[in-house]
Amino acid sequence: MDLIIKNGMLVSASETYQADIAVKDGKITAISNDLGTDATSVIDAQGKYVLPGAIDAHTHLAMPFGGTVSSDDYFAGTRAAACGGTTTVFDFALQDFDEPMLDVIKRRDKIAAPQAAVDYAFHIGVKDIHGELLDSMQAAVDCGVPSFKIFMVYDFGVSDGVFYQLLEKSKEINTMISVHAENNDLVNYNVKKFLSAGKTSPWYHYLSRPEFVEGEADLRAIQWAKETGAKLYIVHLANKQGVEAVTLAKQEGYPIYAETCPQYLHFTRDVYKRDDGRNFVCSPPMKGQQSQDALWDALKRGDIDVVATDHCPFMQSEKDWGLNDFSKIPNGCAGVENMYPYMLDKANKGEITFNKAVELCAANPARIFGCADKGSLTIGKDADIVIYDPNKDFTITCEKMHSDYDHTIWEGTDLTGYPEMTFSRGKLVFNNGEFLGEAGYGKFIKRQLTE
Amino acid sequence: MDLIIKNGMLVSASETYQADIAVKDGKITAISNDLGTDATSVIDAQGKYVLPGAIDAHTHLAMPFGGTVSSDDYFAGTRAAACGGTTTVFDFALQDFDEPMLDVIKRRDKIAAPQAAVDYAFHIGVKDIHGELLDSMQAAVDCGVPSFKIFMVYDFGVSDGVFYQLLEKSKEINTMISVHAENNDLVNYNVKKFLSAGKTSPWYHYLSRPEFVEGEADLRAIQWAKETGAKLYIVHLANKQGVEAVTLAKQEGYPIYAETCPQYLHFTRDVYKRDDGRNFVCSPPMKGQQSQDALWDALKRGDIDVVATDHCPFMQSEKDWGLNDFSKIPNGCAGVENMYPYMLDKANKGEITFNKAVELCAANPARIFGCADKGSLTIGKDADIVIYDPNKDFTITCEKMHSDYDHTIWEGTDLTGYPEMTFSRGKLVFNNGEFLGEAGYGKFIKRQLTE
Amino acid sequence: MDLIIKNGMLVSASETYQADIAVKDGKITAISNDLGTDATSVIDAQGKYVLPGAIDAHTHLAMPFGGTVSSDDYFAGTRAAACGGTTTVFDFALQDFDEPMLDVIKRRDKIAAPQAAVDYAFHIGVKDIHGELLDSMQAAVDCGVPSFKIFMVYDFGVSDGVFYQLLEKSKEINTMISVHAENNDLVNYNVKKFLSAGKTSPWYHYLSRPEFVEGEADLRAIQWAKETGAKLYIVHLANKQGVEAVTLAKQEGYPIYAETCPQYLHFTRDVYKRDDGRNFVCSPPMKGQQSQDALWDALKRGDIDVVATDHCPFMQSEKDWGLNDFSKIPNGCAGVENMYPYMLDKANKGEITFNKAVELCAANPARIFGCADKGSLTIGKDADIVIYDPNKDFTITCEKMHSDYDHTIWEGTDLTGYPEMTFSRGKLVFNNGEFLGEAGYGKFIKRQLTE
Amino acid sequence: MDLIIKNGMLVSASETYQADIAVKDGKITAISNDLGTDATSVIDAQGKYVLPGAIDAHTHLAMPFGGTVSSDDYFAGTRAAACGGTTTVFDFALQDFDEPMLDVIKRRDKIAAPQAAVDYAFHIGVKDIHGELLDSMQAAVDCGVPSFKIFMVYDFGVSDGVFYQLLEKSKEINTMISVHAENNDLVNYNVKKFLSAGKTSPWYHYLSRPEFVEGEADLRAIQWAKETGAKLYIVHLANKQGVEAVTLAKQEGYPIYAETCPQYLHFTRDVYKRDDGRNFVCSPPMKGQQSQDALWDALKRGDIDVVATDHCPFMQSEKDWGLNDFSKIPNGCAGVENMYPYMLDKANKGEITFNKAVELCAANPARIFGCADKGSLTIGKDADIVIYDPNKDFTITCEKMHSDYDHTIWEGTDLTGYPEMTFSRGKLVFNNGEFLGEAGYGKFIKRQLTE
Repeated sequence: MDLIIKNGMLVSASETYQADIAVKDGKITAISNDLGTDATSVIDAQGKYVLPGAIDAHTHLAMPFGGTVSSDDYFAGTRAAACGGTTTVFDFALQDFDEPMLDVIKRRDKIAAPQAAVDYAFHIGVKDIHGELLDSMQAAVDCGVPSFKIFMVYDFGVSDGVFYQLLEKSKEINTMISVHAENNDLVNYNVKKFLSAGKTSPWYHYLSRPEFVEGEADLRAIQWAKETGAKLYIVHLANKQGVEAVTLAKQEGYPIYAETCPQYLHFTRDVYKRDDGRNFVCSPPMKGQQSQDALWDALKRGDIDVVATDHCPFMQSEKDWGLNDFSKIPNGCAGVENMYPYMLDKANKGEITFNKAVELCAANPARIFGCADKGSLTIGKDADIVIYDPNKDFTITCEKMHSDYDHTIWEGTDLTGYPEMTFSRGKLVFNNGEFLGEAGYGKFIKRQLTE
Repeated sequence: MDLIIKNGMLVSASETYQADIAVKDGKITAISNDLGTDATSVIDAQGKYVLPGAIDAHTHLAMPFGGTVSSDDYFAGTRAAACGGTTTVFDFALQDFDEPMLDVIKRRDKIAAPQAAVDYAFHIGVKDIHGELLDSMQAAVDCGVPSFKIFMVYDFGVSDGVFYQLLEKSKEINTMISVHAENNDLVNYNVKKFLSAGKTSPWYHYLSRPEFVEGEADLRAIQWAKETGAKLYIVHLANKQGVEAVTLAKQEGYPIYAETCPQYLHFTRDVYKRDDGRNFVCSPPMKGQQSQDALWDALKRGDIDVVATDHCPFMQSEKDWGLNDFSKIPNGCAGVENMYPYMLDKANKGEITFNKAVELCAANPARIFGCADKGSLTIGKDADIVIYDPNKDFTITCEKMHSDYDHTIWEGTDLTGYPEMTFSRGKLVFNNGEFLGEAGYGKFIKRQLTE
Repeated sequence: MDLIIKNGMLVSASETYQADIAVKDGKITAISNDLGTDATSVIDAQGKYVLPGAIDAHTHLAMPFGGTVSSDDYFAGTRAAACGGTTTVFDFALQDFDEPMLDVIKRRDKIAAPQAAVDYAFHIGVKDIHGELLDSMQAAVDCGVPSFKIFMVYDFGVSDGVFYQLLEKSKEINTMISVHAENNDLVNYNVKKFLSAGKTSPWYHYLSRPEFVEGEADLRAIQWAKETGAKLYIVHLANKQGVEAVTLAKQEGYPIYAETCPQYLHFTRDVYKRDDGRNFVCSPPMKGQQSQDALWDALKRGDIDVVATDHCPFMQSEKDWGLNDFSKIPNGCAGVENMYPYMLDKANKGEITFNKAVELCAANPARIFGCADKGSLTIGKDADIVIYDPNKDFTITCEKMHSDYDHTIWEGTDLTGYPEMTFSRGKLVFNNGEFLGEAGYGKFIKRQLTE
Repeated sequence: MDLIIKNGMLVSASETYQADIAVKDGKITAISNDLGTDATSVIDAQGKYVLPGAIDAHTHLAMPFGGTVSSDDYFAGTRAAACGGTTTVFDFALQDFDEPMLDVIKRRDKIAAPQAAVDYAFHIGVKDIHGELLDSMQAAVDCGVPSFKIFMVYDFGVSDGVFYQLLEKSKEINTMISVHAENNDLVNYNVKKFLSAGKTSPWYHYLSRPEFVEGEADLRAIQWAKETGAKLYIVHLANKQGVEAVTLAKQEGYPIYAETCPQYLHFTRDVYKRDDGRNFVCSPPMKGQQSQDALWDALKRGDIDVVATDHCPFMQSEKDWGLNDFSKIPNGCAGVENMYPYMLDKANKGEITFNKAVELCAANPARIFGCADKGSLTIGKDADIVIYDPNKDFTITCEKMHSDYDHTIWEGTDLTGYPEMTFSRGKLVFNNGEFLGEAGYGKFIKRQLTE
């Protein structure tokens, strides 16, 4: 064997049990009550949890947006991921206008491949489906990218007709359509209204996109999905009305999935009243307490399927562009290194089970997005493994993080328990605070939907 | 007295009772078990119902639309109204771009005043609120037009932001906002899809705007109304999902009102498969049986407040424009002369009460739209009175109607019972099939919202 | 004419308008803008409201209960009614075991007829349907008593099977089944539990029958009614869950009706913590604020059909039986003289319309229970008329009331506006605080269901 | 090793993967891609599924009921279980009146221990909680029986007060309360009604306990559970209304669980019209197609937690007691040998996943009822293993079954795929149609609730 981790408490989406686990050639090969010590590397995980590496189903690395580029490139972003126990990221490859889907992947993979320190996959962010572009989706599917995202907001957002057409196509060729759901016209109206009234603080970022503006778009997106029968995955769901709509749709039997992010589970709109409120500006914005409660309830009962990060950090100097105008703040916050530790902290404190944390951060994104070799500690799967020390106290600071940014919204957050080691296909890429990986080790993961 | 109608069965929204009723100077002055016969005109209504004249809250007379003008001008339209027991029409004055609201009314009233044979009021159809136009709404309210309509479809439809801004303004100055709710983008996508596939028959008019396309817009309109707290009146509601949303909103206590039309209560989408399907083309189109059932159920339990017609007839030659392309058919059908007879026929056959028919066609539009002198047989109100013979069989034919059109979707419809006489402010304007009114008799009715 | 009331503001369930109203031979004969003054009695009601006399659809006069008899006999109760603007009471004639339905009416009418000062009708309180008793319901219907009540609680309450059988029979012969809905077994369990724990104060009366105990019984009663298709009228509805169930059932089209009482609209469970808490003991008890809010909301949107009183006063000495044991307190409170003034006060203060007050207290009980000659100011109906002075301040005190009791839960309640005169079939029975009626004037009212 | 099963497709509630699995001393000790062949017994499961043995959470072995005793004693019942891939049964130990809970277990275990061929646990069927019996529940919990069932029907059914009290106690000491939910009074009323009308066929068994009679009891049971906060497990849920109530309660966050049985998933009420309809008589009876559809939908979306059998067979001669009177038919059908094969057949045919079958029949009953050593193929758990051949066609016949009965409702049912071997704690108890176990091998399983 290459690696044996002994005596740890293994966690799957449904079980928690003590066992040894062995790795060979990057794969999980054995789980047993006693695997001995005949391996290149033997680690005693007594008193630790042994978990599947997390999948962050929603990152924006080196993402051109808001007049700049998100500060984590593929190396920095995957480095941070590894150090937070995340062994796979699903990043967004944003289409250019007139660009066939396969070209989007190729173009983006050229950037990612030499940089990635852990494995990665792509969703395509769709801007344009005119002419033969719609048909080019199949080529993306064929090369392992069966998921596409549209935006209902931003200047590259699509109209309802385009959204609907995409869903029709998706139903035909079985892909997953993700959606950033907010009502663009209301956002624009509100922004203009507030700015023209001299209301420029980050609080008006929230007031421009409050609960009902996101909720309406959720309802609309679900309406189209129900009608076409296509699968729909709502990214970064953050409001109660949307949660209720997802719950209802699931109950009616529709293949509607929902993702939320740690920032919505942890912060409320009150952050926008802080002096550094601009640093928390992302879209959708954090919402009120009722929405946060609804997210937790839905997560616990299974109506939120995935926790991912929407990781999209910017430098302080860029965030400062909006000091006098909230609309100029680049939208996005960091999270890829914080997600798994945050959710496991909640498990460690008994608010959810460890099984639930694993389900949300690993098993479900793997299942929903067709990532067969990831997401659980199962014989034959990639040895993406995290050893988690439940007794280690950790306070998040920018300094301790491994991204290329100069501030973090998570600054000062206290966690109980923290990842001790991360293995990516059996290779130790993180150990006790130190990144041990290397650029280019991460591989592009072909996915294939099975549901 | 000028007029005494004796021995009839008087009907209000809540009562049915035998009594005499007297009129003087155009007003109802007395109701009694015996008013004697000391009057200029004495009519024995033994065995007849004596009803308030209907209000048609939704007409489009001389309406420029679809490349032509609706075929009924204000004279023909109000003549037809009178002959169908409708003594007031609320017509739409459609704003030009850049036109202040008061100018809209003045411009339109110049056309209507010399022609109207019965009383009329205006809603303003809003296209444009830029600059100071929004503030000009108050002037319209001050001169008796406190209701405005927006369209979510058509090239003059407004965006969500404009719609929302209008609701905010409406909440501030207490007006009623009406909405034609369909999703414009989906309609456009569908039309293009079908035409490009050579699917050109009227059935594809329906398939371009099926239940879920209207339902989505209902949900969205209600979302904005709830958030602003403004009053909202959904015109020509025709789908089950929208009905359910209205029911829920009412239950939650929001001031949301709904109107449907006789054509949605009587016909289903199957008409679009008929050879003359193009004649039934209106928007929203007739829907499936489930939606029709939902409309009747909602009407009976009080969740549909008003029945009105969306009267907007076109000539056969114009409807024929769409013989090879459903998208070229002018949208609209006749109804102003048919509404009250149709609803009273339902009462006469026991499907609803006469009280319910009066509530939907007279009392409710008067109350909701602030028309204090109309809508019921009450001392002091205008003597707009219909004598209805429950035993007269009537088959609707184009020939017997009093509009300026050459065909009607109601052709051949058999009714049991029919209006015998119509009085407008005490003046006999219809008697046994014959129109007795005159152009210019009808007055502009100032309205003031009281709810 | 016998009587002309001039210049008052007449109120129906749907209209409010100024007119004169005339009475002859106990009937309303004319309503007009000017009826002159040619009458035996002419009253100027300028500045006053002229209203139909109220119907109290739920009274217990001379009711044997809880080891004693309610303190108002038919004379005192109807005297109080008249002085509160209520001109008809629907009293409960409680069946003896083994007693045919017609005998119940006859037995009770012997007591009521010589005493009643205003008109009255009966509901039969059913204890027993064994053998041929079920078939004897038809005889009651034939003599004008088409409404029956069952109790789900008390030692004379009926089992679910009997309740269901009664509904089946009711569907067959078209009667109205009323129900006192609380879960008997839970009440008994709770009472025993609290008493055995030494918890004896009136607060434990509430805790023995809290929201969910009533709510469950509402659901069960509605379940049986839906299944049989029979009409069901839930008396004294006092909890939110029940309200929601009624709303849903109405929405689904079932003939389910609900009544609440002024005490549930005005007081909450907090009264049971007062020193005189025992005086407020009735069943169901007053509930929490959420339930009260739900009642008002439902009342406003039309899901509560009737306000009635459950009038059942006991003397202070009897209430005192429960000083050390809440279970010994006779259940019941006074209300017949307070209902109409209370609801009209709410109208006068703008919380509801006068039309709504009239609908709830007069028009609806008349319509639902088939009382054709009552409930509105309509030509041909009984001249049961109330003149209401909206400017008269009134504070309820036991001393000013006209019942045979020595305390009232309404003591000290301030009202704005109060009835000035009450006419029963044209006869002045109350004038400015003074009762002018006489025992035996009131007549038994035959009813016939028309819905 | 004692046993190595090689190359099979292992199935858990969340994963399906190929691996070898090893057993030592009755426990699962290793799972690996290659465990070699160094074991007492080595089995090649290439092309087969390797599954956790099922848990039948609901059996009635040697159950005195309906004037006789169910025909399977503990030996026959567990023999049949083993032959159907079920390695644990949760049987009901029915309390005698006045019997302390621990005595119930002891009394019953004396019968079961020498007979059981596979492991077993007990639920206590509670009849009586007077005096100190309620407090005796703790002793049962302490000895590993933390689940109690009450019946809302039958002569030993409990009143609402007792049910509620039990839930209060259960909340206090954390047990699971199961409930057989039907409305006893309605059943009795209906039975009497039908029999007295000469309606005696099994169809009237259904009509005596149709959907709404079960649905009402579900609502009531859930009402009590919600109020007390106690855990509730509804056994043999068979109607749509109940399903909807469970779904809603789960959504609201209440710990409400539901079980259904294969007979409700496979048969509808139509069986009661068959000549052998009496053989299908069980309570609740099979329902209509809408209810069956609702059960499948709920099962798929996770609102039905467990599939169990209510196994309670009777001999044909006993079923025949009801040839002329449905009320005399002993209630109950066989199922313990059919459950797992039936559900796995559905998985094999693609209607559900194998993971779902395992979740419903093994993982969930283990988790919900605190059976830590059972329910999944996990290191350290009991080696209760089934090898399932997906390619073996099997037609159920009474002859091939291993119960002590002479007919089965499953006669003639065709299955695709069937269990080939069953291991109970590593011991082969069933092989290719042949029972290999022995009486007394099965052990009593102590359970402890962890949720």
